Amino acid sequence: MKKSINNLESKLQALLRSQHSHYTQGKVANYIPALEEVKPDLVAVSVATLDGKNVGVGDYQHPFSIQSISKVFGLVMAMNRMGDSLWQRVRMEPSGQPFNSIIQLEWEKGIPRNPVINAGALLISDVLTSHFSASKLAFVCFLRNLAQDENIHVDNEVYQSELAHGNRNAALAYLMKSFGNIEAEISDVLAHYFTQCSVAMSCEQLAQSLLFLANKGLDPISNQRVCSPKDAHRINAILSTSGMYDQSGEFAFTVGLPAKSGVGGGVIAIVPNYGVICTWSPPLNSFGNSVVGMNLIAGIAQELGLSIYH
Amino acid sequence: MKKSINNLESKLQALLRSQHSHYTQGKVANYIPALEEVKPDLVAVSVATLDGKNVGVGDYQHPFSIQSISKVFGLVMAMNRMGDSLWQRVRMEPSGQPFNSIIQLEWEKGIPRNPVINAGALLISDVLTSHFSASKLAFVCFLRNLAQDENIHVDNEVYQSELAHGNRNAALAYLMKSFGNIEAEISDVLAHYFTQCSVAMSCEQLAQSLLFLANKGLDPISNQRVCSPKDAHRINAILSTSGMYDQSGEFAFTVGLPAKSGVGGGVIAIVPNYGVICTWSPPLNSFGNSVVGMNLIAGIAQELGLSIYH
Amino acid sequence: MKKSINNLESKLQALLRSQHSHYTQGKVANYIPALEEVKPDLVAVSVATLDGKNVGVGDYQHPFSIQSISKVFGLVMAMNRMGDSLWQRVRMEPSGQPFNSIIQLEWEKGIPRNPVINAGALLISDVLTSHFSASKLAFVCFLRNLAQDENIHVDNEVYQSELAHGNRNAALAYLMKSFGNIEAEISDVLAHYFTQCSVAMSCEQLAQSLLFLANKGLDPISNQRVCSPKDAHRINAILSTSGMYDQSGEFAFTVGLPAKSGVGGGVIAIVPNYGVICTWSPPLNSFGNSVVGMNLIAGIAQELGLSIYH
Amino acid sequence: MKKSINNLESKLQALLRSQHSHYTQGKVANYIPALEEVKPDLVAVSVATLDGKNVGVGDYQHPFSIQSISKVFGLVMAMNRMGDSLWQRVRMEPSGQPFNSIIQLEWEKGIPRNPVINAGALLISDVLTSHFSASKLAFVCFLRNLAQDENIHVDNEVYQSELAHGNRNAALAYLMKSFGNIEAEISDVLAHYFTQCSVAMSCEQLAQSLLFLANKGLDPISNQRVCSPKDAHRINAILSTSGMYDQSGEFAFTVGLPAKSGVGGGVIAIVPNYGVICTWSPPLNSFGNSVVGMNLIAGIAQELGLSIYH
Repeated sequence: MKKSINNLESKLQALLRSQHSHYTQGKVANYIPALEEVKPDLVAVSVATLDGKNVGVGDYQHPFSIQSISKVFGLVMAMNRMGDSLWQRVRMEPSGQPFNSIIQLEWEKGIPRNPVINAGALLISDVLTSHFSASKLAFVCFLRNLAQDENIHVDNEVYQSELAHGNRNAALAYLMKSFGNIEAEISDVLAHYFTQCSVAMSCEQLAQSLLFLANKGLDPISNQRVCSPKDAHRINAILSTSGMYDQSGEFAFTVGLPAKSGVGGGVIAIVPNYGVICTWSPPLNSFGNSVVGMNLIAGIAQELGLSIYH
Repeated sequence: MKKSINNLESKLQALLRSQHSHYTQGKVANYIPALEEVKPDLVAVSVATLDGKNVGVGDYQHPFSIQSISKVFGLVMAMNRMGDSLWQRVRMEPSGQPFNSIIQLEWEKGIPRNPVINAGALLISDVLTSHFSASKLAFVCFLRNLAQDENIHVDNEVYQSELAHGNRNAALAYLMKSFGNIEAEISDVLAHYFTQCSVAMSCEQLAQSLLFLANKGLDPISNQRVCSPKDAHRINAILSTSGMYDQSGEFAFTVGLPAKSGVGGGVIAIVPNYGVICTWSPPLNSFGNSVVGMNLIAGIAQELGLSIYH
Repeated sequence: MKKSINNLESKLQALLRSQHSHYTQGKVANYIPALEEVKPDLVAVSVATLDGKNVGVGDYQHPFSIQSISKVFGLVMAMNRMGDSLWQRVRMEPSGQPFNSIIQLEWEKGIPRNPVINAGALLISDVLTSHFSASKLAFVCFLRNLAQDENIHVDNEVYQSELAHGNRNAALAYLMKSFGNIEAEISDVLAHYFTQCSVAMSCEQLAQSLLFLANKGLDPISNQRVCSPKDAHRINAILSTSGMYDQSGEFAFTVGLPAKSGVGGGVIAIVPNYGVICTWSPPLNSFGNSVVGMNLIAGIAQELGLSIYH
Repeated sequence: MKKSINNLESKLQALLRSQHSHYTQGKVANYIPALEEVKPDLVAVSVATLDGKNVGVGDYQHPFSIQSISKVFGLVMAMNRMGDSLWQRVRMEPSGQPFNSIIQLEWEKGIPRNPVINAGALLISDVLTSHFSASKLAFVCFLRNLAQDENIHVDNEVYQSELAHGNRNAALAYLMKSFGNIEAEISDVLAHYFTQCSVAMSCEQLAQSLLFLANKGLDPISNQRVCSPKDAHRINAILSTSGMYDQSGEFAFTVGLPAKSGVGGGVIAIVPNYGVICTWSPPLNSFGNSVVGMNLIAGIAQELGLSIYH
């Protein structure tokens, strides 16, 4: 049977060693000082499976800034709250553009192409800000509950850094507001968005937290329903076509799993009916994706035969 | 077990009836006279499975113009001939643009975003024209062999119509040539491309011809290897992110299968490890996809639990 | 001799009458309530000449919101303060885009195409905010001095309306700031910009205030130097290629004078070595230019042979 | 009095000497071999005035490839033939884009922004091809007549080179044809266009040929009417806003004359009511304009006070 996990830990160790010379190929995110300081040779893999196992190697319990991986959690919350009406304000098409491009947003009159580019995630932040009495707290609580860990928190240094360098995101938000597609105050929307991005979690926690997406919306550990089967399907579809920024097509082509990356160096990949892989390595390629993180997921997917396109 | 096909024929018949009122929602392609004449209420579904069954309802043996579905076959031929060097001349990213847009091609200096938008398919046509001694004949033979039917042919009326209305495709080809990314004469490239598009096939034939993509590159009927497992994976990935024009994200979101549509009204969907669905209904929506054809595939995927994102 | 002004007043009256049926062809600006309320059949022309005459007909002493005409005054102030270093932060090319487009600003990395599109005027507002201790006051004083009228003031209702509907301008400003091309706080920049736009002046005052541009930088009434001959030339050049939004080419083609319009319905045209024409009629065409105002200037230029291209 | 031409020849000589060190600042056009071979230190100035004088210095009788300067002559012919209906097929706005951009043409549905970018000149070539029985011959005769020199001819080596490297222009033409804005065969349109571009003329001839634009459409030497006063005005307006490619705004800002450049290194500038300046120096800047040629015109305009914006 494929997808066997005998000796998974030793396989992960071997993969980790194989990447030893690749940490120097990318560049740690430097748009804010707080991220720039992270050591480039930190590296981790966790694989959580539906049967409750969670195997990690390297720095898999070391928290890092989840950044855009937070878009997945925000999206779940907004879908649960808004139902299908959400899709009148954001589309589900790949963008064919860099993650923070403002051009397409102007062309398409303030409707973001999908919820995992920056404009879309700001739209989702507006939904959460407008429909939750304390959206930032609600977001953190949602993560603590999913990861079963009350210590998950926002890294305040990262948050302050994001706020101080948030002009392009402010531009995206104001442009959407000029088209009538933002309800809350921009400052509140940005505060929510940067809060999401600044949460610190480990690979182990992220892999565990997202198991519901591999299990039709049901968390297999707590047995609680996180979202509907239909919405789990939809999120996996969006992550497959758009989760890896403007490298999503190449990731599908070479790996074949729904995935989301963050500029903190984390990558999560969903394996339907199997589990979740989370990797972390700070150096990024020119698309903003972790070089070693993608290599590790590719290696695991190949080794275990996990692609959804086979 | 999901994917049961007990009573598949009666299920398909029921789905067909359920679409009775939807044939009027789209508009038959009218950019060339030859397509405009097709009757809008022709409709068909075929489901071919790896075990050799091929169940059809409606006009499933009626040949129609395969149009952009031909891009899948041309891509297989080019990948087989060129190996990985092909991907230096065409990318594998979704475009975020209409299928025939010239804007992105200018931005990206003559390198098409993927092989299933028009620019990409013209690039593939250049490869075939340049690397086969008689590429048009080779293309038709490839289809005859896959479908095991020597009667498959090019509809000459459609071909002449395409040639007479091919100015935008000529513009795309000349723009690529100006960037040095077309080798052959433009007139030869266009002749090959319009030949591909003008092949007439039935749903039954198309479903059968593409089984290799659901079976890691191996045709399960003839047992011949059509492409490598890796290339079957890659093609399914491209069809998942880009196969349904600028509605690919929505198709993934609502259906969840690698698919390709053509403006003749045909749609094919690959179900890895299971089989191929092909539908046909001429009226198209604003994206150029068959309205009823997409509905039928959505119904079958739902009924049988076929999505790859679950 | 051309440019004769014998009977100028009666000629202007005749021109005004000829436009009687054209007031219904455009649409009064409605993006803010304060402008929407202006009566569409108000109409005025003033012609001020270098010899000190200032002939007006219609509502030529009725103050109106000068809106984008203010960009000319702000530009003079910034050029005087910054010298040639200003042109490292803003270019002098026509944009080929609507006045408030954000697309080009992204392409050109936060450097506005010219100082009379919105992005450029926001850049100028940043310069003034950063380099004057009280830029809003300084701006109003500059106008009072030029028009020799201490009663010129900011229309507070318009100002509040602008502030409340300024999201797109905020988006432009934040985008420039993300590229490092805005120094001051965005809220201060916008406050200055909307103050400029909200100044109310009459045709008589505007025509008088801009005489220096027809006279190589020297105000012929007060004999004070407002700007250098070189900068008067430069401003006239910018107004000729870019002053009438994305209709600047057509205005040059049909009229042939450096000009600037505002969405309040005002248009000013500079006639080098002769004087200034100012017209006012609130209904705008689709480019944002006053329909009747442009007709009137065209009529005067034709009648008196004023074009610079002959 | 400004515009004095006492000692004009010695002034031109001095200007020529002042540019001695600037011939190395640009780069001779290298997109076709025939242009690449031209010696970079050839340099010429001619000033023709309405009183019949024509003063030249340097290589002012040396013929060179007029390239895009030919767009002015083609435009006159098309305006004469078509009247105002021409302006339904081409606009008169600056483009804000490189001269050969295809992006704007797609946005604006096959209607070129103006007749002096490549798309616009191809449109004009289509008009001439469709409305003259032998348009290439008619074009050369028109030039011979204007310059009063039967020896003016097409440089066949340049023409063949253009044809062999014309893919981007073909792309522009096919795109317009796909929007229904080209009537003739593309190959005929391109043949006319490249014929125009390949005409060889000297500075002396070019300056003389364009005097009618400085004289309200009347050739002051032959006293023949070349175009209407209105059309002379319109052409000067178009040259002022769009004649120097995407550097037209800067040229207006610094020099202030209607002008047109060609990649052969020629530049012509019209001085209404005075005459025509023509310069030639092959090395081009990044916009495609002759570095020394622009400097020389700037120097003459400054020296003689010729700007239209003063």
